[in-house]
Amino acid sequence: MTIHGLYDVIIIGGGPAGITASLYAARQKMNALIITREFGGQITRKVTPVENWPGTVQITGPDLINSFQKHLRKHKIDIERDEVSKIKKVKNYFCITTKSKNHFKTYAVIVATGADPRPLEVEGEQHFVGKGVSYCPLCDGPLFYNKKVAVIGGGNSAMEAALLLSKYVNHIYILEASDKLAAFKDNQDKVLATKKAEIITSAKVLKIEGAKTVEKIIYEDKTSKHKKELEVDGIFIEIGNQPATSFLKDLVNFSKRDEIKINPRTCQTRTKGLFACGDVTDVFPKQIVVAAGEGSKAAVNAYNYVQDVKKC
Amino acid sequence: MTIHGLYDVIIIGGGPAGITASLYAARQKMNALIITREFGGQITRKVTPVENWPGTVQITGPDLINSFQKHLRKHKIDIERDEVSKIKKVKNYFCITTKSKNHFKTYAVIVATGADPRPLEVEGEQHFVGKGVSYCPLCDGPLFYNKKVAVIGGGNSAMEAALLLSKYVNHIYILEASDKLAAFKDNQDKVLATKKAEIITSAKVLKIEGAKTVEKIIYEDKTSKHKKELEVDGIFIEIGNQPATSFLKDLVNFSKRDEIKINPRTCQTRTKGLFACGDVTDVFPKQIVVAAGEGSKAAVNAYNYVQDVKKC
Repeated sequence: MTIHGLYDVIIIGGGPAGITASLYAARQKMNALIITREFGGQITRKVTPVENWPGTVQITGPDLINSFQKHLRKHKIDIERDEVSKIKKVKNYFCITTKSKNHFKTYAVIVATGADPRPLEVEGEQHFVGKGVSYCPLCDGPLFYNKKVAVIGGGNSAMEAALLLSKYVNHIYILEASDKLAAFKDNQDKVLATKKAEIITSAKVLKIEGAKTVEKIIYEDKTSKHKKELEVDGIFIEIGNQPATSFLKDLVNFSKRDEIKINPRTCQTRTKGLFACGDVTDVFPKQIVVAAGEGSKAAVNAYNYVQDVKKC
Repeated sequence: MTIHGLYDVIIIGGGPAGITASLYAARQKMNALIITREFGGQITRKVTPVENWPGTVQITGPDLINSFQKHLRKHKIDIERDEVSKIKKVKNYFCITTKSKNHFKTYAVIVATGADPRPLEVEGEQHFVGKGVSYCPLCDGPLFYNKKVAVIGGGNSAMEAALLLSKYVNHIYILEASDKLAAFKDNQDKVLATKKAEIITSAKVLKIEGAKTVEKIIYEDKTSKHKKELEVDGIFIEIGNQPATSFLKDLVNFSKRDEIKINPRTCQTRTKGLFACGDVTDVFPKQIVVAAGEGSKAAVNAYNYVQDVKKC
C-alpha cells in the first residue's frame, strides 16, 4: 500500500465551499490536496441562472463554477479526481482511502461534499425513475413538452424547477406537504407569473402509479384528510438534498436531516482536525455565498489547527 | 417628528455584509431600507488588490464594491445616505434615529457597520496623527518616499500595508507585540521578498517621539525586557479594527474586542429582531467572503423573524 502525502490539509469536494476552502488553504501556503470527482456540485445542475452571487447580476451555474476553477488554478494545489470511501484518524493524522484504492495522509481534513437530491420515499418512486420520475428538470424537462407534470416540494429549488419546466409543459402542479411554501417570495412570484402553475399545499404524496410510465400521483389532503389524485406525465422531486457523508459515519455527529453538525464559529466537527463546510453541514441557509464564506472559515481554522499540531 | 416607514427590515452599513444582506432582503421581497453614509467600508481603503473573492483572480477594492453596488441597483430597495445615532426597541418595532435627525420604524434591523482602525493608545500617538502617524498607507504612503517607516501589527492588513509601503520607502520595521505574526504565510512571504522589511516580534510599543514630526519609536523587547528605539519618519498602525457600534449600547452583548456577540447560526443578537453580520460581529475570520455569507444568513433569518412577528 502506497501512502501519498503527508498533506497539511485535504479538502474533499469541489463545489463553492470546497473551492473557497482550497483557495484559502493555498493562500496560507498549506500543502493541500483537493479530492473531487468533478467541480461544481449542485451548481452545475442548477436550472436557472445564479442571481445571488454578490457582484454578479446574472451568471449560469457552470460559468460561475468555471470562474472559481480558474481562480483555483492560479494557486499551487494538488487535485485528485476521485471519491473518498473512508477516513480514519490515527493519532494526529487522518488516513484517507479513495474508491480507486489510493491512500493519502494528512493533518487536517475539510469535508465539503455537498448534497444529492433527497428521494421522496413513496410507493412507485423507485420503479418509475427514468419513466416519468426525475430529480433533474434540466436533464428531463424537454421530455414533457406540452404535457402535465407535478413538482414535489415548496422550496427555492422547487420554484426554480417549476420556472424552467414552464417553458416546456402545459401545466404544473406544485405539491407541498406543509401549509405554506418555504421558497423566497420573489421565486414564488416568478412561478405564478407563468400562469401555468397550480400550488397545492398540505398535500402529502402517497403513491405514484402508471402502466409503463407515470400516469398519476395520489396524495392526501392533510386538511380534509381526503385522498386525491392528479393525472400527470412526469414528476419532479425537489424536496431538498441529502448530504454526501457515507464515508464519515463514526467521526462526526449528524443533524435530523443527516447533515454534519459543526461548531458554527469554526466549522470544526466532533473530531479534532476534521472540519466541514457548505451544504453537507447544518449551516443555514443553503446558499452559494454562505457555502463560500464557510469554506474560508474552515480553511483558516484548519490552518490554525495544523500550526498547533505541528508544534507538539 | 416625522417617522418614515414602516419597513420590514433596515440594514445599517454598506460594505460586503450590508450589501449582501440587502440583496437577499430584496430577493425576499422585503420592504427594505439601507442606511449608510458610503458604500464599501474597509474595502475602499484596501491598499492591495483583492485576490480572495472567489471566482475573481484579482480586482481592486473599489471595483469589487462597484460590482456589488451595481448588483444592488437591480433591486428595489430604499437607500438613505446617513449615519445611525440611536436604535430603540418599542414593543415589536425598532425606532431608528439618524445623525440628520430622521426617524425610521422597522420590524427588524441588520447591523453591518463594519469597523474602523483601532488606535494603539500609546503616548504621542494622538499628537502625531497627520505628522507621521497614519492609519492609511494608501493615503499617506507616498509621503515617505525614500524614508524609514514602522508598521505596527502582524496581521494580514499589516502585511498588506508593508507591501504597499515597500514601493515608496527605503526600510520598513514591522513591530508585532506577540511572539509571531498572525498574517497568512503567503502575505508574510510577499513582504519578505521585498527585501525592505525587518520583522521584530515581542515588541511592545511604548511611545512615539519627535520634535515637529515623528522621529522615533520606543518599544520594549518583551524577551529581554530592554527598552529599545528605532529612528523612523512614519508610523503606520495596523493592529486591527474597532467595530462601529456606538449607537447600540444597551441592545447587544460585546466580545472582549468590542465586537457584537451573535448567535453564529442565525446572526441574531441578544435582542430579538436585531441581527448583525460581518466585521462588526465576533465572526472569524474577518474576510470579505465570510462577511458576504453572513449577510445572506442575517437576511434570511430576519425574513423568517419578520414573517413570525407579522403573524401575531
